[in-house]
Amino acid sequence: MSQFSQELKLVQTRINHFLETQFDGIESHNAPLRDAMKYGLLLGGKRVRPFLVYATGKMLGAKEETLDYAAAAIEAIHAYSLIHDDLPAMDNDDLRRGHPTCHIAFDEATAILAGDVLQSFAFDILTQAPSLSAEQKLSLVQLLARASGVQGMCLGQSLDLISEHKQIGLDELERIHRNKTGALLTAALKLGFICSPHFSDKTLEMRLTNYAEAIGLAFQVQDDILDIEGDSAEIGKPVGSDLGLDKSTYPKLLGLAGAKQKAQDLYQTALSELEKIPFDTTALRALAEFIITRKS
Amino acid sequence: MSQFSQELKLVQTRINHFLETQFDGIESHNAPLRDAMKYGLLLGGKRVRPFLVYATGKMLGAKEETLDYAAAAIEAIHAYSLIHDDLPAMDNDDLRRGHPTCHIAFDEATAILAGDVLQSFAFDILTQAPSLSAEQKLSLVQLLARASGVQGMCLGQSLDLISEHKQIGLDELERIHRNKTGALLTAALKLGFICSPHFSDKTLEMRLTNYAEAIGLAFQVQDDILDIEGDSAEIGKPVGSDLGLDKSTYPKLLGLAGAKQKAQDLYQTALSELEKIPFDTTALRALAEFIITRKS
Repeated sequence: MSQFSQELKLVQTRINHFLETQFDGIESHNAPLRDAMKYGLLLGGKRVRPFLVYATGKMLGAKEETLDYAAAAIEAIHAYSLIHDDLPAMDNDDLRRGHPTCHIAFDEATAILAGDVLQSFAFDILTQAPSLSAEQKLSLVQLLARASGVQGMCLGQSLDLISEHKQIGLDELERIHRNKTGALLTAALKLGFICSPHFSDKTLEMRLTNYAEAIGLAFQVQDDILDIEGDSAEIGKPVGSDLGLDKSTYPKLLGLAGAKQKAQDLYQTALSELEKIPFDTTALRALAEFIITRKS
Repeated sequence: MSQFSQELKLVQTRINHFLETQFDGIESHNAPLRDAMKYGLLLGGKRVRPFLVYATGKMLGAKEETLDYAAAAIEAIHAYSLIHDDLPAMDNDDLRRGHPTCHIAFDEATAILAGDVLQSFAFDILTQAPSLSAEQKLSLVQLLARASGVQGMCLGQSLDLISEHKQIGLDELERIHRNKTGALLTAALKLGFICSPHFSDKTLEMRLTNYAEAIGLAFQVQDDILDIEGDSAEIGKPVGSDLGLDKSTYPKLLGLAGAKQKAQDLYQTALSELEKIPFDTTALRALAEFIITRKS
């Protein structure tokens, strides 16, 4: 196992344990809502967003005990978006990470509500992050609210739904992905940054943002490539499902070789931003490499 | 028009105007998501929650310019819950306040996303409330997140869905309504309280909470009574729809006379809490009266 895989595994263990403990205080009459919320949150997943929170925060001297809260919040937002995106009225997916999606395991109404409460949970937990000033916690809340809202993640999902069965150009495809997945990946880095003593360094923030936007887009380009070249058992959904939906993808607009070149260019952009940061960027470099070389 | 109706009208005008201006900065490529969000938020409604925010806050010396933000946030949470509750997988309502529900006016996917972004919007706007300390704003966020989440409003909706076509007792009915509608009404008062200079007075907070819980439950009892006695044109939905759904209601469990007595008792409890508060409680008294005498 590579050094990076080991670190990702450590993050997964840590954040999953932290998330588990959050359900201890919720009484049993909240079932099935509580169970559906927990199911959606703990169904697995690479935990890339928590990894970004920890990697950035630790690089900048934030406390791990503080980062747990930020990592939990962003993963809750990500989990809610997956639950809602999988609904019949949206992407209508029965499987997620090889398991039944939330509305299949429970029912549609419970899945809608589970997504809703995961969102509230995210903001609640940010207010509880230890060792931060009230100003810092408020910045976390505002950042996450904006990254996930009508000018961020949900906008991306909405534009993506509109674009189905429609010819769109590269600009529009990029707008979709910068919002749908990019906004939250960028937010993950910024959450880690805000939790650190360097939270008022605007130049550092800009470089981290540039890095995040590059790997965010690279992540999506690689997703599109995997939909053509990947192994469906590893991905956890059928290969070629985007083609079936007649979706616009990078390989469709740029060709497979062009898409691979695009991923490489974004990777180089990400690395060159990291070179300008006067901290130990090993973990962020490793993540960028993982993103464009991953097989699932 | 009564003094109270005039004040409610002023609140409606003020908050509707404030909410309208929040959409100015959202670019047009966000349509239809932005339009659906706006539609759900500005479809009308009594604005009882904003009224409670303003009435409580002004009574305690909070600035109206600050209260706008808290009122907007709670109304956004209320609007998101209505959009999601109306969905086919939930209550499956085509009409709300006499207008097509959000998923009818747009489509289901857009309605789900519109609810989602209204929730993010609520937390974002709380972080922007002027003239408050970061601690106060953080309290607003935490309070609203908890009141609307898995131990508040969404729990109530989940329990309500489970209770359909099932015999439940008074305790369970009360648990449903204390969460489904009560949690947010109580939160409305507390938001106004937190915006005021008295935000650390625990005794005052307890009395306001007792008042809020009483009128919250009275609101629901009256809703159930109106479903039997009301005028469908005034209510904006068909009379008797709860009976058709075989739902548990106060008139069903207590008889119509018993339900009316329950509403009266709760009204008296609310008034007696207000008597212990050393501020001008005229507006809150008037609201309690409105709640149990309203016809729609």
